[in-house]
Amino acid sequence: MKRLGFVGLGVMGGPMAGHLIEAGHSVVVWNRTASKASVFADTGAEIADSLADLAEQCDVIFLCVGRSEDVEECIHAMTPSAKPGTIFVDHSTISPSVAAMLHRTLSEDGFRFIDAPITGGSMGAQSGKLTIFCGGDEATFNEVEPLMQAYGKTVAYVGPGGKGQMMKMANQIAVGGALIGLCESLAFAKRAGLDIAQTRELLSGGAAGSWAFENYGPKILDQDWTPGFSINNQVKDFGYCREVASEIGASIPMTELTECLLSELIKQGRGEETTAALFDLLARGENS
Amino acid sequence: MKRLGFVGLGVMGGPMAGHLIEAGHSVVVWNRTASKASVFADTGAEIADSLADLAEQCDVIFLCVGRSEDVEECIHAMTPSAKPGTIFVDHSTISPSVAAMLHRTLSEDGFRFIDAPITGGSMGAQSGKLTIFCGGDEATFNEVEPLMQAYGKTVAYVGPGGKGQMMKMANQIAVGGALIGLCESLAFAKRAGLDIAQTRELLSGGAAGSWAFENYGPKILDQDWTPGFSINNQVKDFGYCREVASEIGASIPMTELTECLLSELIKQGRGEETTAALFDLLARGENS
Repeated sequence: MKRLGFVGLGVMGGPMAGHLIEAGHSVVVWNRTASKASVFADTGAEIADSLADLAEQCDVIFLCVGRSEDVEECIHAMTPSAKPGTIFVDHSTISPSVAAMLHRTLSEDGFRFIDAPITGGSMGAQSGKLTIFCGGDEATFNEVEPLMQAYGKTVAYVGPGGKGQMMKMANQIAVGGALIGLCESLAFAKRAGLDIAQTRELLSGGAAGSWAFENYGPKILDQDWTPGFSINNQVKDFGYCREVASEIGASIPMTELTECLLSELIKQGRGEETTAALFDLLARGENS
Repeated sequence: MKRLGFVGLGVMGGPMAGHLIEAGHSVVVWNRTASKASVFADTGAEIADSLADLAEQCDVIFLCVGRSEDVEECIHAMTPSAKPGTIFVDHSTISPSVAAMLHRTLSEDGFRFIDAPITGGSMGAQSGKLTIFCGGDEATFNEVEPLMQAYGKTVAYVGPGGKGQMMKMANQIAVGGALIGLCESLAFAKRAGLDIAQTRELLSGGAAGSWAFENYGPKILDQDWTPGFSINNQVKDFGYCREVASEIGASIPMTELTECLLSELIKQGRGEETTAALFDLLARGENS
Protein backbone atom coordinates (compact mmCIF):
# COMPACT_ATOMS: atom_id res chain seq x y z
CA MET A 1 0.00 0.00 0.00
CA LYS A 2 1.32 3.40 -0.98
CA ARG A 3 2.05 5.79 1.83
CA LEU A 4 0.69 9.27 1.11
CA GLY A 5 1.83 12.63 2.44
CA PHE A 6 -0.30 15.76 2.62
CA VAL A 7 1.34 19.15 3.16
CA GLY A 8 -0.88 22.15 3.88
CA LEU A 9 -4.03 21.54 5.91
CA GLY A 10 -5.85 24.83 5.41
CA VAL A 11 -9.39 25.54 4.22
CA MET A 12 -8.81 23.43 1.10
CA GLY A 13 -6.06 20.99 2.09
CA GLY A 14 -7.59 20.02 5.45
CA PRO A 15 -10.78 18.51 4.00
CA MET A 16 -8.86 17.00 1.06
CA ALA A 17 -6.48 15.16 3.41
CA GLY A 18 -9.57 14.10 5.38
CA HIS A 19 -11.08 12.50 2.28
CA LEU A 20 -7.87 10.52 1.61
CA ILE A 21 -7.94 9.20 5.18
CA GLU A 22 -11.65 8.33 4.94
CA ALA A 23 -10.96 6.46 1.70
CA GLY A 24 -8.69 4.14 3.73
CA HIS A 25 -5.30 5.38 2.57
CA SER A 26 -2.25 5.46 4.82
CA VAL A 27 -1.63 9.19 5.27
CA VAL A 28 1.07 11.34 6.89
CA VAL A 29 0.23 15.04 7.33
CA TRP A 30 2.20 18.20 8.00
CA ASN A 31 1.22 21.84 8.35
CA ARG A 32 3.33 24.95 8.98
CA THR A 33 0.99 25.94 11.81
CA ALA A 34 1.16 22.74 13.90
CA SER A 35 -2.27 23.26 15.49
CA LYS A 36 -3.95 22.63 12.13
CA ALA A 37 -2.18 19.26 11.94
CA SER A 38 -2.96 18.28 15.52
CA VAL A 39 -6.69 18.00 14.75
CA PHE A 40 -5.72 14.99 12.61
CA ALA A 41 -4.38 13.16 15.70
CA ASP A 42 -7.38 10.90 16.16
CA THR A 43 -8.19 10.32 12.49
CA GLY A 44 -5.70 7.52 11.96
CA ALA A 45 -3.28 9.82 10.12
CA GLU A 46 0.27 10.22 11.32
CA ILE A 47 1.48 13.74 12.05
CA ALA A 48 5.01 14.28 10.77
CA ASP A 49 7.53 16.18 12.90
CA SER A 50 8.94 17.94 9.86
CA LEU A 51 8.74 18.04 6.09
CA ALA A 52 11.92 15.92 5.94
CA ASP A 53 10.28 13.36 8.24
CA LEU A 54 7.16 13.27 6.03
CA ALA A 55 9.14 13.00 2.81
CA GLU A 56 11.22 9.98 3.86
CA GLN A 57 8.08 7.93 4.60
CA CYS A 58 5.95 8.70 1.55
CA ASP A 59 5.54 7.51 -2.05
CA VAL A 60 3.19 10.27 -3.14
CA ILE A 61 3.19 13.74 -1.56
CA PHE A 62 0.33 16.20 -2.09
CA LEU A 63 0.81 19.91 -1.45
CA CYS A 64 -1.88 22.52 -0.97
CA VAL A 65 -0.15 25.67 0.22
CA GLY A 66 -0.14 29.32 -0.84
CA ARG A 67 2.08 30.93 -3.41
CA SER A 68 4.84 29.80 -5.77
CA GLU A 69 7.52 30.54 -3.15
CA ASP A 70 5.73 28.42 -0.50
CA VAL A 71 5.60 25.44 -2.85
CA GLU A 72 9.27 25.83 -3.75
CA GLU A 73 10.26 26.12 -0.08
CA CYS A 74 8.30 23.01 0.95
CA ILE A 75 9.66 20.94 -1.93
CA HIS A 76 13.25 21.99 -1.24
CA ALA A 77 12.77 20.92 2.38
CA MET A 78 11.57 17.48 1.25
CA THR A 79 13.83 16.48 -1.64
CA PRO A 80 16.93 15.69 0.50
CA SER A 81 15.07 12.89 2.33
CA ALA A 82 12.50 11.87 -0.29
CA LYS A 83 12.71 8.40 -1.89
CA PRO A 84 13.78 8.19 -5.54
CA GLY A 85 10.73 8.33 -7.81
CA THR A 86 8.53 10.09 -5.26
CA ILE A 87 5.57 11.79 -6.96
CA PHE A 88 4.88 15.36 -5.83
CA VAL A 89 1.33 16.54 -6.65
CA ASP A 90 0.87 20.27 -6.18
CA HIS A 91 -2.72 21.44 -5.68
CA SER A 92 -1.69 25.07 -5.02
CA THR A 93 -2.34 27.72 -7.67
CA ILE A 94 1.12 28.98 -8.60
CA SER A 95 2.93 30.59 -11.48
CA PRO A 96 2.89 28.28 -14.52
CA SER A 97 6.54 29.11 -15.16
CA VAL A 98 7.48 28.07 -11.61
CA ALA A 99 5.46 24.89 -12.13
CA ALA A 100 7.34 24.21 -15.38
CA MET A 101 10.65 24.84 -13.60
CA LEU A 102 9.70 22.41 -10.80
CA HIS A 103 8.84 19.77 -13.41
CA ARG A 104 12.32 20.20 -14.88
CA THR A 105 14.39 20.27 -11.69
CA LEU A 106 12.48 17.49 -9.91
CA SER A 107 12.79 15.29 -12.96
CA GLU A 108 16.56 15.92 -13.08
CA ASP A 109 16.76 14.80 -9.44
CA GLY A 110 14.87 11.55 -10.13
CA PHE A 111 11.51 12.67 -8.77
CA ARG A 112 8.16 13.14 -10.52
CA PHE A 113 5.83 16.12 -10.43
CA ILE A 114 2.21 16.84 -11.35
CA ASP A 115 0.85 20.40 -11.26
CA ALA A 116 -2.76 19.93 -10.20
CA PRO A 117 -4.50 23.17 -9.22
CA ILE A 118 -8.08 22.86 -8.07
CA THR A 119 -11.37 24.71 -8.36
CA GLY A 120 -14.61 24.29 -6.49
CA GLY A 121 -13.86 26.32 -3.37
CA SER A 122 -14.07 25.29 0.26
CA MET A 123 -17.48 23.72 -0.33
CA GLY A 124 -16.01 21.56 -3.11
CA ALA A 125 -13.14 20.52 -0.82
CA GLN A 126 -15.54 19.60 1.98
CA SER A 127 -17.90 17.64 -0.25
CA GLY A 128 -15.04 16.00 -2.16
CA LYS A 129 -16.27 17.42 -5.46
CA LEU A 130 -13.34 19.48 -6.68
CA THR A 131 -12.31 19.91 -10.28
CA ILE A 132 -8.58 19.21 -10.71
CA PHE A 133 -6.53 20.31 -13.74
CA CYS A 134 -3.44 18.09 -14.06
CA GLY A 135 -0.29 18.80 -16.04
CA GLY A 136 2.76 16.56 -16.36
CA ASP A 137 3.76 13.12 -17.57
CA GLU A 138 0.61 11.18 -18.47
CA ALA A 139 1.76 7.85 -17.02
CA THR A 140 2.54 9.58 -13.72
CA PHE A 141 -0.91 11.21 -13.83
CA ASN A 142 -2.48 7.77 -14.32
CA GLU A 143 -0.72 6.53 -11.18
CA VAL A 144 -2.08 9.29 -8.94
CA GLU A 145 -5.47 9.89 -10.58
CA PRO A 146 -7.28 7.19 -8.55
CA LEU A 147 -5.98 8.78 -5.33
CA MET A 148 -7.37 12.21 -6.28
CA GLN A 149 -10.79 10.65 -6.88
CA ALA A 150 -11.13 10.80 -3.07
CA TYR A 151 -11.79 14.55 -3.34
CA GLY A 152 -12.23 15.17 -7.07
CA LYS A 153 -15.48 15.13 -9.04
CA THR A 154 -13.52 15.82 -12.24
CA VAL A 155 -9.83 14.87 -12.36
CA ALA A 156 -8.61 15.91 -15.80
CA TYR A 157 -5.30 15.43 -17.57
CA VAL A 158 -4.79 18.59 -19.61
CA GLY A 159 -1.25 18.28 -20.98
CA PRO A 160 2.47 18.40 -20.16
CA GLY A 161 4.06 20.10 -17.14
CA GLY A 162 2.59 23.53 -16.37
CA LYS A 163 -0.61 23.03 -18.41
CA GLY A 164 -2.62 22.37 -15.24
CA GLN A 165 -1.73 25.86 -14.04
CA MET A 166 -2.49 27.25 -17.52
CA MET A 167 -5.98 25.73 -17.34
CA LYS A 168 -6.46 27.24 -13.88
CA MET A 169 -5.50 30.65 -15.31
CA ALA A 170 -8.06 30.21 -18.11
CA ASN A 171 -10.59 29.35 -15.42
CA GLN A 172 -9.76 32.43 -13.34
CA ILE A 173 -10.08 34.68 -16.39
CA ALA A 174 -13.59 33.38 -17.10
CA VAL A 175 -14.46 33.69 -13.39
CA GLY A 176 -13.33 37.32 -13.57
CA GLY A 177 -15.65 38.06 -16.49
CA ALA A 178 -18.67 36.54 -14.81
CA LEU A 179 -17.79 38.36 -11.58
CA ILE A 180 -17.41 41.82 -13.07
CA GLY A 181 -20.50 41.23 -15.22
CA LEU A 182 -22.54 40.42 -12.14
CA CYS A 183 -21.16 43.28 -10.02
CA GLU A 184 -21.37 45.92 -12.76
CA SER A 185 -24.91 44.83 -13.64
CA LEU A 186 -26.24 44.88 -10.08
CA ALA A 187 -24.47 48.15 -9.23
CA PHE A 188 -26.03 49.69 -12.37
CA ALA A 189 -29.44 48.30 -11.35
CA LYS A 190 -29.10 49.80 -7.89
CA ARG A 191 -28.21 53.23 -9.30
CA ALA A 192 -31.10 52.90 -11.78
CA GLY A 193 -33.56 52.44 -8.93
CA LEU A 194 -34.35 48.84 -9.78
CA ASP A 195 -34.96 46.21 -7.10
CA ILE A 196 -31.64 44.36 -7.13
CA ALA A 197 -33.17 41.19 -5.68
CA GLN A 198 -35.63 41.12 -8.59
CA THR A 199 -32.80 42.00 -11.00
CA ARG A 200 -30.72 39.08 -9.80
CA GLU A 201 -33.66 36.72 -10.06
CA LEU A 202 -34.77 37.84 -13.53
CA LEU A 203 -31.27 37.90 -15.02
CA SER A 204 -30.13 34.57 -13.54
CA GLY A 205 -32.39 32.50 -15.76
CA GLY A 206 -31.37 33.97 -19.14
CA ALA A 207 -28.39 34.84 -21.30
CA ALA A 208 -26.85 36.79 -18.41
CA GLY A 209 -26.93 33.75 -16.13
CA SER A 210 -23.81 32.34 -14.55
CA TRP A 211 -22.50 30.45 -11.54
CA ALA A 212 -21.52 33.87 -10.19
CA PHE A 213 -25.15 35.10 -10.43
CA GLU A 214 -26.36 32.02 -8.55
CA ASN A 215 -23.69 32.00 -5.87
CA TYR A 216 -22.44 35.58 -5.43
CA GLY A 217 -25.77 37.26 -6.17
CA PRO A 218 -27.26 36.30 -2.79
CA LYS A 219 -24.12 37.51 -0.96
CA ILE A 220 -24.44 40.90 -2.66
CA LEU A 221 -28.11 41.16 -1.68
CA ASP A 222 -27.20 40.34 1.93
CA GLN A 223 -24.15 42.65 1.86
CA ASP A 224 -22.26 39.59 3.11
CA TRP A 225 -18.62 40.19 2.23
CA THR A 226 -17.15 37.13 3.95
CA PRO A 227 -15.27 34.81 1.58
CA GLY A 228 -15.88 32.52 -0.41
CA PHE A 229 -12.83 33.27 -2.42
CA SER A 230 -10.95 36.30 -1.18
CA ILE A 231 -9.93 39.37 -3.17
CA ASN A 232 -6.30 38.77 -2.15
CA ASN A 233 -6.40 35.27 -3.63
CA GLN A 234 -8.11 36.44 -6.83
CA VAL A 235 -5.57 39.22 -7.32
CA LYS A 236 -2.74 36.76 -6.68
CA ASP A 237 -4.13 34.52 -9.44
CA PHE A 238 -4.70 37.46 -11.81
CA GLY A 239 -1.04 38.36 -11.31
CA TYR A 240 -0.08 34.89 -12.58
CA CYS A 241 -2.54 35.34 -15.48
CA ARG A 242 -0.82 38.59 -16.47
CA GLU A 243 2.62 37.02 -16.15
CA VAL A 244 1.63 34.17 -18.50
CA ALA A 245 -0.34 36.37 -20.89
CA SER A 246 2.72 38.52 -21.36
CA GLU A 247 4.88 35.44 -22.05
CA ILE A 248 2.53 33.85 -24.57
CA GLY A 249 1.22 37.08 -26.15
CA ALA A 250 -2.37 36.66 -24.97
CA SER A 251 -4.66 39.66 -24.71
CA ILE A 252 -6.59 39.82 -21.39
CA PRO A 253 -7.85 43.41 -21.02
CA MET A 254 -10.93 42.50 -18.95
CA THR A 255 -8.82 40.49 -16.53
CA GLU A 256 -6.43 43.43 -16.16
CA LEU A 257 -9.36 45.79 -15.55
CA THR A 258 -10.91 43.48 -12.95
CA GLU A 259 -7.55 43.07 -11.21
CA CYS A 260 -7.17 46.84 -11.13
CA LEU A 261 -10.59 47.32 -9.50
CA LEU A 262 -10.03 44.55 -6.96
CA SER A 263 -6.63 46.07 -6.12
CA GLU A 264 -8.49 49.25 -5.24
CA LEU A 265 -10.42 47.25 -2.63
CA ILE A 266 -7.13 45.86 -1.27
CA LYS A 267 -5.90 49.45 -0.86
CA GLN A 268 -9.05 50.10 1.15
CA GLY A 269 -8.09 47.24 3.51
CA ARG A 270 -10.73 44.86 2.13
CA GLY A 271 -8.43 42.17 0.65
CA GLU A 272 -9.80 39.39 2.85
CA GLU A 273 -13.40 40.03 1.76
CA THR A 274 -15.14 38.03 -0.98
CA THR A 275 -14.50 39.06 -4.58
CA ALA A 276 -18.23 39.88 -4.78
CA ALA A 277 -17.42 43.02 -2.75
CA LEU A 278 -16.49 44.45 -6.17
CA PHE A 279 -20.22 45.27 -6.31
CA ASP A 280 -19.76 47.58 -3.34
CA LEU A 281 -16.90 49.45 -5.01
CA LEU A 282 -18.90 49.96 -8.22
CA ALA A 283 -22.18 50.82 -6.46
CA ARG A 284 -20.43 53.51 -4.39
CA GLY A 285 -18.73 54.88 -7.47
CA GLU A 286 -15.41 55.03 -5.60
CA ASN A 287 -13.45 54.05 -8.69
CA SER A 288 -14.81 56.88 -10.82
CA MET B 1 -62.61 40.54 -27.73
CA LYS B 2 -59.68 42.92 -27.89
CA ARG B 3 -58.19 43.52 -31.30
CA LEU B 4 -54.38 43.36 -31.23
CA GLY B 5 -51.86 45.00 -33.54
CA PHE B 6 -48.32 43.79 -34.10
CA VAL B 7 -45.78 46.09 -35.76
CA GLY B 8 -42.42 44.64 -36.77
CA LEU B 9 -42.35 41.03 -37.98
CA GLY B 10 -38.63 40.33 -37.97
CA VAL B 11 -36.64 37.53 -36.36
CA MET B 12 -38.23 38.30 -32.97
CA GLY B 13 -41.54 39.97 -33.82
CA GLY B 14 -42.57 37.44 -36.47
CA PRO B 15 -42.70 34.42 -34.14
CA MET B 16 -44.18 36.56 -31.33
CA ALA B 17 -47.08 37.68 -33.53
CA GLY B 18 -47.47 34.05 -34.59
CA HIS B 19 -47.90 32.99 -30.95
CA LEU B 20 -50.63 35.62 -30.42
CA ILE B 21 -52.49 34.29 -33.48
CA GLU B 22 -52.08 30.66 -32.33
CA ALA B 23 -53.45 31.64 -28.93
CA GLY B 24 -56.69 32.62 -30.70
CA HIS B 25 -56.40 36.40 -30.53
CA SER B 26 -57.69 38.69 -33.25
CA VAL B 27 -54.50 40.14 -34.73
CA VAL B 28 -53.63 42.80 -37.31
CA VAL B 29 -50.01 42.91 -38.48
CA TRP B 30 -47.80 45.40 -40.28
CA ASN B 31 -44.18 45.38 -41.36
CA ARG B 32 -42.06 47.99 -43.10
CA THR B 33 -40.93 45.38 -45.62
CA ALA B 34 -44.32 44.16 -46.82
CA SER B 35 -43.09 40.69 -47.84
CA LYS B 36 -42.52 39.82 -44.17
CA ALA B 37 -46.18 40.63 -43.48
CA SER B 38 -47.51 38.73 -46.50
CA VAL B 39 -46.43 35.38 -44.98
CA PHE B 40 -49.16 36.02 -42.38
CA ALA B 41 -51.86 35.99 -45.11
CA ASP B 42 -53.10 32.47 -44.42
CA THR B 43 -52.70 32.52 -40.64
CA GLY B 44 -56.00 34.22 -39.90
CA ALA B 45 -54.30 37.54 -39.18
CA GLU B 46 -55.25 40.65 -41.09
CA ILE B 47 -52.46 42.53 -42.87
CA ALA B 48 -52.84 46.28 -42.46
CA ASP B 49 -52.27 48.60 -45.43
CA SER B 50 -50.52 51.14 -43.25
CA LEU B 51 -49.67 51.93 -39.66
CA ALA B 52 -52.63 54.35 -39.59
CA ASP B 53 -54.92 51.57 -40.82
CA LEU B 54 -53.61 49.21 -38.12
CA ALA B 55 -53.90 51.80 -35.37
CA GLU B 56 -57.54 52.66 -35.98
CA GLN B 57 -58.61 49.01 -35.60
CA CYS B 58 -56.66 48.01 -32.48
CA ASP B 59 -56.97 48.22 -28.70
CA VAL B 60 -53.46 47.04 -27.91
CA ILE B 61 -50.52 47.55 -30.27
CA PHE B 62 -47.24 45.68 -29.86
CA LEU B 63 -44.05 46.96 -31.48
CA CYS B 64 -40.87 45.02 -32.09
CA VAL B 65 -38.70 47.18 -34.31
CA GLY B 66 -35.12 48.43 -34.24
CA ARG B 67 -33.84 51.55 -32.61
CA SER B 68 -35.32 54.42 -30.61
CA GLU B 69 -35.97 56.44 -33.75
CA ASP B 70 -37.86 53.55 -35.42
CA VAL B 71 -40.16 53.24 -32.42
CA GLU B 72 -40.80 57.00 -32.35
CA GLU B 73 -41.50 57.06 -36.09
CA CYS B 74 -43.97 54.15 -35.94
CA ILE B 75 -45.81 55.59 -32.93
CA HIS B 76 -46.07 59.03 -34.52
CA ALA B 77 -47.59 57.38 -37.61
CA MET B 78 -50.21 55.65 -35.45
CA THR B 79 -51.33 58.20 -32.86
CA PRO B 80 -53.42 60.34 -35.29
CA SER B 81 -55.78 57.39 -35.99
CA ALA B 82 -55.43 55.40 -32.74
CA LYS B 83 -58.43 55.07 -30.40
CA PRO B 84 -58.28 56.93 -27.09
CA GLY B 85 -56.81 54.71 -24.39
CA THR B 86 -54.92 52.49 -26.84
CA ILE B 87 -52.10 50.63 -25.11
CA PHE B 88 -48.78 50.64 -26.94
CA VAL B 89 -46.41 47.86 -25.78
CA ASP B 90 -42.88 48.31 -27.08
CA HIS B 91 -40.75 45.15 -27.18
CA SER B 92 -37.82 46.90 -28.90
CA THR B 93 -34.66 47.67 -26.93
CA ILE B 94 -34.41 51.45 -27.01
CA SER B 95 -32.95 54.30 -25.02
CA PRO B 96 -34.52 54.41 -21.54
CA SER B 97 -34.79 58.19 -21.82
CA VAL B 98 -36.70 57.91 -25.11
CA ALA B 99 -38.95 55.30 -23.44
CA ALA B 100 -39.58 57.69 -20.54
CA MET B 101 -40.37 60.49 -23.01
CA LEU B 102 -42.83 58.25 -24.88
CA HIS B 103 -44.55 57.42 -21.58
CA ARG B 104 -44.96 61.13 -20.93
CA THR B 105 -46.13 62.28 -24.36
CA LEU B 106 -48.45 59.32 -25.03
CA SER B 107 -50.03 59.78 -21.62
CA GLU B 108 -50.61 63.49 -22.36
CA ASP B 109 -52.37 62.45 -25.59
CA GLY B 110 -54.68 60.00 -23.78
CA PHE B 111 -52.82 56.82 -24.71
CA ARG B 112 -51.03 54.28 -22.56
CA PHE B 113 -47.52 52.88 -22.94
CA ILE B 114 -45.54 49.94 -21.58
CA ASP B 115 -41.82 49.60 -22.29
CA ALA B 116 -41.33 45.86 -22.52
CA PRO B 117 -37.92 44.84 -23.91
CA ILE B 118 -37.30 41.13 -24.27
CA THR B 119 -34.49 38.64 -23.82
CA GLY B 120 -34.21 35.05 -24.90
CA GLY B 121 -33.13 35.48 -28.50
CA SER B 122 -34.69 34.11 -31.65
CA MET B 123 -34.96 30.67 -30.05
CA GLY B 124 -36.94 32.18 -27.17
CA ALA B 125 -39.22 33.98 -29.61
CA GLN B 126 -39.83 30.79 -31.59
CA SER B 127 -40.49 28.64 -28.54
CA GLY B 128 -42.58 31.36 -26.87
CA LYS B 129 -40.27 31.43 -23.85
CA LEU B 130 -39.06 35.00 -23.75
CA THR B 131 -38.32 36.98 -20.63
CA ILE B 132 -40.06 40.37 -20.75
CA PHE B 133 -39.13 43.34 -18.52
CA CYS B 134 -42.11 45.70 -18.24
CA GLY B 135 -42.09 49.33 -17.14
CA GLY B 136 -45.09 51.65 -16.84
CA ASP B 137 -48.38 51.97 -15.00
CA GLU B 138 -49.01 48.75 -13.07
CA ALA B 139 -52.76 48.57 -13.85
CA THR B 140 -51.98 48.92 -17.56
CA PHE B 141 -49.37 46.18 -17.21
CA ASN B 142 -51.96 43.93 -15.59
CA GLU B 143 -54.26 44.43 -18.62
CA VAL B 144 -51.66 43.34 -21.16
CA GLU B 145 -49.73 40.78 -19.12
CA PRO B 146 -52.06 37.85 -20.04
CA LEU B 147 -51.57 38.66 -23.75
CA MET B 148 -47.78 38.54 -23.44
CA GLN B 149 -48.03 35.09 -21.84
CA ALA B 150 -48.50 33.86 -25.44
CA TYR B 151 -44.75 34.30 -25.97
CA GLY B 152 -43.35 35.00 -22.51
CA LYS B 153 -41.98 32.46 -20.04
CA THR B 154 -41.39 35.27 -17.51
CA VAL B 155 -43.40 38.47 -17.86
CA ALA B 156 -42.19 40.75 -15.08
CA TYR B 157 -43.36 44.14 -13.89
CA VAL B 158 -40.20 45.97 -12.84
CA GLY B 159 -41.35 49.54 -12.13
CA PRO B 160 -42.56 52.82 -13.64
CA GLY B 161 -42.03 53.98 -17.21
CA GLY B 162 -38.52 53.34 -18.53
CA LYS B 163 -37.58 50.75 -15.89
CA GLY B 164 -38.17 47.90 -18.34
CA GLN B 165 -35.40 49.34 -20.52
CA MET B 166 -33.24 49.89 -17.42
CA MET B 167 -33.59 46.19 -16.57
CA LYS B 168 -32.67 45.28 -20.14
CA MET B 169 -29.52 47.43 -19.82
CA ALA B 170 -28.62 45.63 -16.56
CA ASN B 171 -29.11 42.37 -18.43
CA GLN B 172 -26.89 43.43 -21.34
CA ILE B 173 -24.13 44.50 -18.94
CA ALA B 174 -24.11 41.06 -17.30
CA VAL B 175 -24.23 39.41 -20.72
CA GLY B 176 -21.17 41.48 -21.66
CA GLY B 177 -19.21 40.25 -18.66
CA ALA B 178 -19.99 36.60 -19.32
CA LEU B 179 -19.17 37.09 -23.02
CA ILE B 180 -15.78 38.73 -22.54
CA GLY B 181 -14.97 36.25 -19.75
CA LEU B 182 -15.65 33.36 -22.12
CA CYS B 183 -13.80 34.88 -25.10
CA GLU B 184 -10.78 36.08 -23.13
CA SER B 185 -10.52 32.71 -21.37
CA LEU B 186 -10.71 30.58 -24.51
CA ALA B 187 -8.39 32.91 -26.47
CA PHE B 188 -5.89 32.64 -23.59
CA ALA B 189 -6.30 28.84 -23.57
CA LYS B 190 -5.64 28.69 -27.32
CA ARG B 191 -2.46 30.77 -27.01
CA ALA B 192 -1.41 28.62 -24.04
CA GLY B 193 -1.58 25.49 -26.18
CA LEU B 194 -4.53 24.01 -24.31
CA ASP B 195 -7.27 22.08 -26.07
CA ILE B 196 -10.04 24.69 -26.19
CA ALA B 197 -12.80 22.06 -26.48
CA GLN B 198 -11.54 20.49 -23.25
CA THR B 199 -11.16 23.96 -21.70
CA ARG B 200 -14.77 24.82 -22.47
CA GLU B 201 -15.99 21.52 -21.11
CA LEU B 202 -13.94 21.65 -17.89
CA LEU B 203 -14.71 25.30 -17.13
CA SER B 204 -18.44 25.12 -17.90
CA GLY B 205 -19.24 23.02 -14.86
CA GLY B 206 -17.59 25.21 -12.22
CA ALA B 207 -17.30 28.75 -10.91
CA ALA B 208 -16.51 29.99 -14.43
CA GLY B 209 -19.73 28.51 -15.81
CA SER B 210 -22.33 30.65 -17.55
CA TRP B 211 -25.06 30.60 -20.18
CA ALA B 212 -22.42 32.08 -22.49
CA PHE B 213 -20.09 29.10 -21.91
CA GLU B 214 -22.92 26.68 -22.69
CA ASN B 215 -24.28 28.50 -25.73
CA TYR B 216 -21.44 30.49 -27.29
CA GLY B 217 -18.68 28.02 -26.38
CA PRO B 218 -19.72 25.52 -29.08
CA LYS B 219 -19.93 28.32 -31.71
CA ILE B 220 -16.36 29.33 -30.88
CA LEU B 221 -15.14 25.74 -31.21
CA ASP B 222 -16.86 25.46 -34.59
CA GLN B 223 -15.66 28.93 -35.68
CA ASP B 224 -19.34 29.57 -36.45
CA TRP B 225 -19.76 33.33 -36.43
CA THR B 226 -23.39 33.46 -37.56
CA PRO B 227 -25.66 35.20 -35.07
CA GLY B 228 -27.27 34.52 -32.54
CA PHE B 229 -27.15 38.06 -31.35
CA SER B 230 -25.15 40.31 -33.63
CA ILE B 231 -22.24 42.56 -32.70
CA ASN B 232 -24.14 45.53 -34.19
CA ASN B 233 -27.10 44.88 -31.88
CA GLN B 234 -24.89 44.40 -28.83
CA VAL B 235 -22.99 47.62 -29.54
CA LYS B 236 -26.31 49.45 -30.04
CA ASP B 237 -27.44 48.24 -26.60
CA PHE B 238 -24.09 49.09 -25.00
CA GLY B 239 -24.49 52.62 -26.37
CA TYR B 240 -27.78 52.89 -24.47
CA CYS B 241 -26.06 51.47 -21.38
CA ARG B 242 -23.40 54.18 -21.56
CA GLU B 243 -26.00 56.89 -22.10
CA VAL B 244 -27.91 55.80 -18.99
CA ALA B 245 -24.80 55.15 -16.91
CA SER B 246 -23.67 58.68 -17.56
CA GLU B 247 -27.09 60.05 -16.53
CA ILE B 248 -27.37 58.07 -13.30
CA GLY B 249 -23.67 58.12 -12.37
CA ALA B 250 -23.14 54.37 -12.72
CA SER B 251 -19.67 52.96 -13.29
CA ILE B 252 -19.52 50.38 -16.13
CA PRO B 253 -15.85 50.07 -17.15
CA MET B 254 -16.08 46.43 -18.31
CA THR B 255 -19.08 47.26 -20.51
CA GLU B 256 -17.16 50.17 -22.04
CA LEU B 257 -14.17 47.91 -22.67
CA THR B 258 -16.31 45.20 -24.27
CA GLU B 259 -18.07 47.79 -26.45
CA CYS B 260 -14.70 49.12 -27.54
CA LEU B 261 -13.47 45.65 -28.56
CA LEU B 262 -16.70 44.80 -30.38
CA SER B 263 -16.50 48.15 -32.20
CA GLU B 264 -13.12 47.05 -33.50
CA LEU B 265 -14.87 44.06 -35.11
CA ILE B 266 -17.44 46.41 -36.67
CA LYS B 267 -14.57 48.40 -38.18
CA GLN B 268 -13.35 45.12 -39.67
CA GLY B 269 -16.73 44.67 -41.36
CA ARG B 270 -17.87 41.94 -38.96
CA GLY B 271 -20.83 43.73 -37.31
CA GLU B 272 -23.39 41.17 -38.45
CA GLU B 273 -21.47 38.28 -36.90
CA THR B 274 -22.26 36.80 -33.47
CA THR B 275 -20.84 38.58 -30.43
CA ALA B 276 -18.86 35.37 -29.76
CA ALA B 277 -16.57 36.45 -32.63
CA LEU B 278 -14.90 38.55 -29.91
CA PHE B 279 -12.93 35.34 -29.31
CA ASP B 280 -11.48 35.64 -32.80
CA LEU B 281 -10.34 39.22 -32.19
CA LEU B 282 -8.64 38.29 -28.90
CA ALA B 283 -7.14 35.04 -30.20
CA ARG B 284 -5.57 36.84 -33.16
CA GLY B 285 -4.26 39.57 -30.89
CA GLU B 286 -5.50 42.22 -33.31
CA ASN B 287 -6.47 44.57 -30.50
CA SER B 288 -3.02 44.62 -28.95
